[in-house]
Amino acid sequence: MNRLLDALAGDPEIEALFTDTAEIAALLRVEAALAAAEAEAGLISAAAAAAIGRAVTDFQPDAAALAAGLVKDGVVAPALVRALRGAVPPEHAEAVHFGATSQDIVDTGLMLRLGELVPILLARLEALDAALSVLAGRWGTRSVMAHTRMQAALPTSFAEKVRTWAEPLARERAALEGLRARRLVIQLGGPVGDRSSFMGKGDDVARRLAARLGLGVAAPWHSQRDGIVEFGSLLALVSGSLGKFGMDVALLSQSEVRAITLKGGGGSSSMAHKSNPVKAELLVALGRFNAGLAGTLQQAMLAENERSGAAWTLEWLVLPRMAITTGRALAVATALVGEIDVPA
Amino acid sequence: MNRLLDALAGDPEIEALFTDTAEIAALLRVEAALAAAEAEAGLISAAAAAAIGRAVTDFQPDAAALAAGLVKDGVVAPALVRALRGAVPPEHAEAVHFGATSQDIVDTGLMLRLGELVPILLARLEALDAALSVLAGRWGTRSVMAHTRMQAALPTSFAEKVRTWAEPLARERAALEGLRARRLVIQLGGPVGDRSSFMGKGDDVARRLAARLGLGVAAPWHSQRDGIVEFGSLLALVSGSLGKFGMDVALLSQSEVRAITLKGGGGSSSMAHKSNPVKAELLVALGRFNAGLAGTLQQAMLAENERSGAAWTLEWLVLPRMAITTGRALAVATALVGEIDVPA
Amino acid sequence: MNRLLDALAGDPEIEALFTDTAEIAALLRVEAALAAAEAEAGLISAAAAAAIGRAVTDFQPDAAALAAGLVKDGVVAPALVRALRGAVPPEHAEAVHFGATSQDIVDTGLMLRLGELVPILLARLEALDAALSVLAGRWGTRSVMAHTRMQAALPTSFAEKVRTWAEPLARERAALEGLRARRLVIQLGGPVGDRSSFMGKGDDVARRLAARLGLGVAAPWHSQRDGIVEFGSLLALVSGSLGKFGMDVALLSQSEVRAITLKGGGGSSSMAHKSNPVKAELLVALGRFNAGLAGTLQQAMLAENERSGAAWTLEWLVLPRMAITTGRALAVATALVGEIDVPA
Amino acid sequence: MNRLLDALAGDPEIEALFTDTAEIAALLRVEAALAAAEAEAGLISAAAAAAIGRAVTDFQPDAAALAAGLVKDGVVAPALVRALRGAVPPEHAEAVHFGATSQDIVDTGLMLRLGELVPILLARLEALDAALSVLAGRWGTRSVMAHTRMQAALPTSFAEKVRTWAEPLARERAALEGLRARRLVIQLGGPVGDRSSFMGKGDDVARRLAARLGLGVAAPWHSQRDGIVEFGSLLALVSGSLGKFGMDVALLSQSEVRAITLKGGGGSSSMAHKSNPVKAELLVALGRFNAGLAGTLQQAMLAENERSGAAWTLEWLVLPRMAITTGRALAVATALVGEIDVPA
Repeated sequence: MNRLLDALAGDPEIEALFTDTAEIAALLRVEAALAAAEAEAGLISAAAAAAIGRAVTDFQPDAAALAAGLVKDGVVAPALVRALRGAVPPEHAEAVHFGATSQDIVDTGLMLRLGELVPILLARLEALDAALSVLAGRWGTRSVMAHTRMQAALPTSFAEKVRTWAEPLARERAALEGLRARRLVIQLGGPVGDRSSFMGKGDDVARRLAARLGLGVAAPWHSQRDGIVEFGSLLALVSGSLGKFGMDVALLSQSEVRAITLKGGGGSSSMAHKSNPVKAELLVALGRFNAGLAGTLQQAMLAENERSGAAWTLEWLVLPRMAITTGRALAVATALVGEIDVPA
Repeated sequence: MNRLLDALAGDPEIEALFTDTAEIAALLRVEAALAAAEAEAGLISAAAAAAIGRAVTDFQPDAAALAAGLVKDGVVAPALVRALRGAVPPEHAEAVHFGATSQDIVDTGLMLRLGELVPILLARLEALDAALSVLAGRWGTRSVMAHTRMQAALPTSFAEKVRTWAEPLARERAALEGLRARRLVIQLGGPVGDRSSFMGKGDDVARRLAARLGLGVAAPWHSQRDGIVEFGSLLALVSGSLGKFGMDVALLSQSEVRAITLKGGGGSSSMAHKSNPVKAELLVALGRFNAGLAGTLQQAMLAENERSGAAWTLEWLVLPRMAITTGRALAVATALVGEIDVPA
Repeated sequence: MNRLLDALAGDPEIEALFTDTAEIAALLRVEAALAAAEAEAGLISAAAAAAIGRAVTDFQPDAAALAAGLVKDGVVAPALVRALRGAVPPEHAEAVHFGATSQDIVDTGLMLRLGELVPILLARLEALDAALSVLAGRWGTRSVMAHTRMQAALPTSFAEKVRTWAEPLARERAALEGLRARRLVIQLGGPVGDRSSFMGKGDDVARRLAARLGLGVAAPWHSQRDGIVEFGSLLALVSGSLGKFGMDVALLSQSEVRAITLKGGGGSSSMAHKSNPVKAELLVALGRFNAGLAGTLQQAMLAENERSGAAWTLEWLVLPRMAITTGRALAVATALVGEIDVPA
Repeated sequence: MNRLLDALAGDPEIEALFTDTAEIAALLRVEAALAAAEAEAGLISAAAAAAIGRAVTDFQPDAAALAAGLVKDGVVAPALVRALRGAVPPEHAEAVHFGATSQDIVDTGLMLRLGELVPILLARLEALDAALSVLAGRWGTRSVMAHTRMQAALPTSFAEKVRTWAEPLARERAALEGLRARRLVIQLGGPVGDRSSFMGKGDDVARRLAARLGLGVAAPWHSQRDGIVEFGSLLALVSGSLGKFGMDVALLSQSEVRAITLKGGGGSSSMAHKSNPVKAELLVALGRFNAGLAGTLQQAMLAENERSGAAWTLEWLVLPRMAITTGRALAVATALVGEIDVPA
């Protein structure tokens, strides 16, 4: 852990969605909802579902044991299921995780967290949009030189510059709403993804599970990863738009340009006169980092057969980092807007 | 030019949209439509618009001169506009490209070509879907071993495998329709993208231009590249889905697995018994190639100020190649479906 | 922090080189060595250097203040230098960091850590090579089917397979030795990288600093990032070689192939009979992850003028993660070798 | 084919190394040398080798048939070998390609072309270095403002700027020489890469083949792709260094900065006063394009078993484009140096 780097590029609110604690809590929530749904569907007894619900509520995860299980099994669910089975009365052990497979729990648990991520991102996009509106309100009528191909072109209004920064964000908000509606869905397929383990009641269980978790219903998508990748691509689009904003601010605040000035620029260890556009540069770095990660995530589309340990693990390495990077970029961008002055 | 590589990874129908001939034709079409729209809006005379229309119809591009202009100016439009101005009566020369800038013509010209690309891709997606339906109809009830994490898991139906390959394609068709509706729009902004060069009639000209070209209306997006990048991300999603299909076919047709057999596999120069899953491997290669390009295209979001020569050029290097790669992958996938047998 | 993900893809020994604690310790070590070198060169007094040395030894970093400084200044050095100046007698405050700039300290501090990384990686490469030799010794004469283009080809010896896995590692060891000799060098340039702030004694100070730190001498390379990128490319080459090894093991241990069997495969939450090649899949994921990061790091070559906050920050986001990923892959690969049996 | 795009980003001299004509010529050259080497080693008769040599000399490739063979077999060699066997007297047909496999011919043929590429790149690096020396000689003593983190820092000499651009190129020349010595080697392994098809004379044939082709000897590396990837990484390092140069020039020649002025900037279709740093922007685009391709090429390390059609094809899609991009960037950079003036 590098607390310095985290202070620069981390995002505590979003990181909290991707800790082991949050992950295990989400997995347990899925297990409890699954048990309840299965009891309603008549697959397990109501007593079993109640026992599982209680066990989940009281569950004290043994992080070391779960980590060891993850390393051994390549996914944390088997160890977690074992522990949960040990925490219910023996007669209900078989009802835990009934008919399900690790990926059902892990993918659905991810969706729960993405479901929490979306409103955070939407709120930040709104906050940034509001800040940009204020900025346009304050300085929009100021004339600034436009630059094309790195050369002064013709004067335009500062409002035009703000429009360029703001419009993609509005589209990205709409796209995020669209993903929320289309893509935040449960995964339920059983061992090989065909729901055959649910004794003919798989679709019923799926509907009930989705309703309980506030997620959409979907056919099993265990090895169809387009939803994950589309989500990541949108994250990169957001951070890319903010990278463009940062690049513009860095260019406009150059010593020789001063089309904008920044309150609170960064200091230098050797040049007292410097006021560096630190947040603007950070936005560029975060945008380029996420762009690269988006390309890597696209590689995870190529998942082998019914479950790819390799491609799935690649998602785990990439997607949370993209979410954190995007969230951080939104926070930095909003702060940067507040630093901008447009000299007459 | 490597005709061998083109035979493997090229796509003549889609490449035809991205030749210099197609590009210049699209640019000229935009110039003619712009002149007509501007005449309607009262910005130029009807006589000028008619003269420009005739000049465009008769235009014989001097490819060498245009290429030289592109190299000098970084964009082909200035040389093309000069040539077009030379081809109309002198009194109408000023009316050519009136109020517009290179990027208006080039980006709108790209949109025209993407507008031709979309139905090609949709038709291929439909053809592939139909082929997969036939495949499912023929072999869907066959039992095949499912594999999770590279190990035999439990039997499932072959219909399940086809479902896994087909469902993402249906979503991608819908997404492509969505992009067509939202993203295939004109770009019209003038020198610095604020339409100030159209003497108050920019929005009117924009509406008329869009209607004439069969594209949507949009505010100037000259330095908002999210539409381009979203388009590219979807292309990579398609080729990634096909890469997953190719990977599955290669795995299922292994000598030791033979869950499927392929008619017409590739031969070896040294081992006469070999029948290689050449199309399946090609799909994997095309999927991974496009995945990488998608990440590179995301970098083009970071466009400087009102026009970035660097980021824009990067788009030119990447997006057409992604379209070709995706189109080729669709054609290869459909051919591969036709090679699949599922032994009892 | 996700302790589960860290257990899977982290590497405590290598992460320890990239914590804030390690980073600050390295920066302080550079400051002390710089002061000593400058005293020898007559730029500051011996008393100042001694005072700085003592302050460094006794320094208690205020992590929160340093993190705040990093966020404000975009680099931690200014805050650290302020703190260090506050920790020496006032008459020596000016001697702290004399003539240097943040980048001198941060880049040289990184080199110290890479200098510790290299022997760790070399040792792991040696251990892996030794394990592969044992493997070849035990099973090398066994005949196994070779596979080309995903099809059984002709029998070969298992020794051939081990040779394919081992030979790139030998080249990578040599390359790592080469980088150690050529690329682990100090950075010393002063504010704009021309050593003009060292009053004519910059080259002398550089030689002494390098000697004290056990690094090579080099002309200022503040905005020449090829050394960093070459280092990262080699890391990706190592993890890519291991990804190939993992892919082969996953393919060879398929249920239908069983050319090798694995002791200690991963379990499933739904299929008791499964023994998944978890380590092999992890190697594939780590290899693909690092491949993507290598491409992102290449983007950091494009550093603006004398110092790019954006490109430099991008390095910070990418390079440590690549080191951790490579180290983890080496450890996993060696463990995987120990799991391999080759049935007769 | 887009002749406009080729004019911008293509490189005829380097593209000539990667045409189908050049590829087939190289493959034939390998077949002839192999036959000669095998005759010397006693594997085929001298008469056969002579007949093969004559057939190669007279060979008229049927491009369409070869392309069709490539598409069918996934590699061109089988069709080429068939054609060549048809072109020798029947009694020598079996001697053609004796003991070899497609990959031996294709990989060695690639090495021949990389062997031609290296001196081209070296010559261009030298030319660029010479141009930079002239530039430093002319303007090196001029004082220019250095910029750190996008802000004016302190004055430095223009010679310092040139040093920053030139030094990585010198290291890259040395690295290219190193690759030439270490990495330009034959591939000879036979069907599964263990030389068992050469009846105990594989190593002897390999030595003779290498000597005849002017390449180094190496153990079979058919599925060890680190040499290819290392080559590509170096190409990206070169174009990345040039991208940094282009970025600096674009920044320094901004209207408000004018630390340098450019002769022959690009014109605008709407703003007659513009003089755009077109070559500088192109260098940035080429650098970022190659950076992305370098990451994609790293994915090709993960080659399945003894031959991966997928990873190998991915190399074909990426590496030639990287060579062309690098060569073009070198030519553009040298031309750009000639455009630079440094105002007093």
